Amino acid sequence: MRFADKLAAAWQASNSLVCVGLDPEPRKFPDALREAPGGIYQFNKAIIDATRDLVCAYKPQSAHYAAQAAENQLEHTIDYIKSTCPNAIVILDGKRGDMGNTAEQYALEAFERYGADALTVNPYLGSDSVEPYLKHADKGVVILCRTSNPGAKDFQDLDVGGGRKLFQYVAEHVATQWNSNGNCMLVTGATYPEDLADIRRRVGDMPLLVPGVGAQGGDVAKVMAAGKTAAGTGLVISSSRAILYASSGADFADAARKAATELRDSINAQR
Amino acid sequence: MRFADKLAAAWQASNSLVCVGLDPEPRKFPDALREAPGGIYQFNKAIIDATRDLVCAYKPQSAHYAAQAAENQLEHTIDYIKSTCPNAIVILDGKRGDMGNTAEQYALEAFERYGADALTVNPYLGSDSVEPYLKHADKGVVILCRTSNPGAKDFQDLDVGGGRKLFQYVAEHVATQWNSNGNCMLVTGATYPEDLADIRRRVGDMPLLVPGVGAQGGDVAKVMAAGKTAAGTGLVISSSRAILYASSGADFADAARKAATELRDSINAQR
Repeated sequence: MRFADKLAAAWQASNSLVCVGLDPEPRKFPDALREAPGGIYQFNKAIIDATRDLVCAYKPQSAHYAAQAAENQLEHTIDYIKSTCPNAIVILDGKRGDMGNTAEQYALEAFERYGADALTVNPYLGSDSVEPYLKHADKGVVILCRTSNPGAKDFQDLDVGGGRKLFQYVAEHVATQWNSNGNCMLVTGATYPEDLADIRRRVGDMPLLVPGVGAQGGDVAKVMAAGKTAAGTGLVISSSRAILYASSGADFADAARKAATELRDSINAQR
Repeated sequence: MRFADKLAAAWQASNSLVCVGLDPEPRKFPDALREAPGGIYQFNKAIIDATRDLVCAYKPQSAHYAAQAAENQLEHTIDYIKSTCPNAIVILDGKRGDMGNTAEQYALEAFERYGADALTVNPYLGSDSVEPYLKHADKGVVILCRTSNPGAKDFQDLDVGGGRKLFQYVAEHVATQWNSNGNCMLVTGATYPEDLADIRRRVGDMPLLVPGVGAQGGDVAKVMAAGKTAAGTGLVISSSRAILYASSGADFADAARKAATELRDSINAQR
C-alpha cells in the first residue's frame, strides 16, 4: 500500500488528525514506572491503550530512547502499535540526514528494524541524502521545512533569491523534485501559522506534519485555517508533552486520554 | 580538559591528522566475522589494534550500528578506544539536529551513554538546537557546513545575500555566534577543496573535519593546501571504507594498517 493511501486510511478510520508524540522522559513518569525495568514500554503501552481510538498517528522520538539505551523498548512500542491499532501511522522522529550510502543504513533502521511507516529527515545534505528513503513508495518521508523552535529563523529565514526564504525554497524543491512517489510530507511548526499557510499555498495538498500545538503554544484554530485541505485533512497535528504528562500521577493515562480527546475535538470543530 | 586542548593533544601525541571512520558493514567483513555474534565489535577491535598509533581520532557512524541493532557493540567499541588509545578523540557521527529539549537527549546519548568526545550535528534548526551541545566545553560540536556528497549543492550553494552561499553563511555564523567555548568544528568535504579553502579563510584556525579523501576521491594535497593551519594542523581527515575494507580477506587488519599508514604519510608530507 502506498504511503499516501495508508495516511488517507488512517485519517478516515480514526476521524482524527491527532498524532501523539511518544517522547518518554522517565523523570516525568508516575512513581511506579519511573525506575521499573521496561518502564518506558509500560508507559507507552498505557498511553497507546488510552488514545488509540483518538489518533491517526504515533510519533516516537528517537533521542528519548537512545539517551536511555532503550532501543528494545522502542521496538516493543512500535510492535504494540502495529498489533493493536493497525490503521495508525508510525512516524519515527529521527530527523536523519546523511549521505547516500549512510542514508541506506538509516532507512534499514527505520523501515526494517523498527517497521516505521515514516521517518523525519533533514534536507541540508540534498538529494542523494533523501533518495534512499524516497524510493520506498510505501513509506513516508517527512522533511524538515519550517521547524517549530525559536532558532528556526537562524537559517530557515535566509533570503535565497526570487523573493523566497530558505524554508520556502525547501518546500518548493520537495514538491517539485522529490515527491514523484507521492510519499513526501513537510514538517511545519504550529508556532508559525503564517508560514504554514505560505507552505500550503506552495505545495498543494501535500500532507504536513505539524508539531508545536501543545507545550510549545501553537494555536489549533490558526493551524487549521492555515493548513487544512479542501477535504478537511492534509495535516498530522502532533502533541507530545501536553498529552504524555497531562498528569504526573497514577491517573496519567486517563489524563492523557482527556488531553488527546480535547485536542481531537478542537481540531475536528475546525475541519 | 577543554575540547580544543584534547584535540591539540591528540594531534601532538599521534603526529597524525588521520581519523578512521568506523562504519561497519557486515556484508563486507571477512567470512569469519560476517555472521559471528559480536562480529562488529571484533571487526572494530581489530581495526583499532591495527591503527591506534597512526590516528588522532576515530569516528563511529551511528547508522551502521542502528541498522544492525548493535548499539551495545558501539558502546564496547568506544570503551575499547578509551582504554587502549586514551589520546584519540572519539567523534560520534550522528548528524543530529532537533529542538532544544530533544537535543538535550541527544547530548545525553553521545556524551553520557557513549562517552564520545564530539558529535556531528546539523545546523538547519538553528541556535537552540545546538546549545545543548555547545555548553559542554569539554566536548566537540562538529557542525555540517559543506558536506562531501554530490547533493550538497542543492541547498548549501544557495545565494543567501552579501555574496555568500548558505554554507559560507553557516561557517561564519558558527565562528561568530556559536564558538564562545572554542569547541566548534565544521564538516568540510575533501571533494570540494576550493570551498574548503574558502571556509578556512572565513573561520581562522577553527578545526575542520574533512571526510571524503578515500572512497569518495578527495585529493590529500589539495586538502592540505586548502585547509592546514600555520601550525600544520587544524584538520581531522577522515577515511572509512578505503581503510576498513582495503582487503575483504583474513588480512583485513594488515591491509587497513597499510592504508592508514599511507594516508598518514601522504598527509604528513604536506604539513
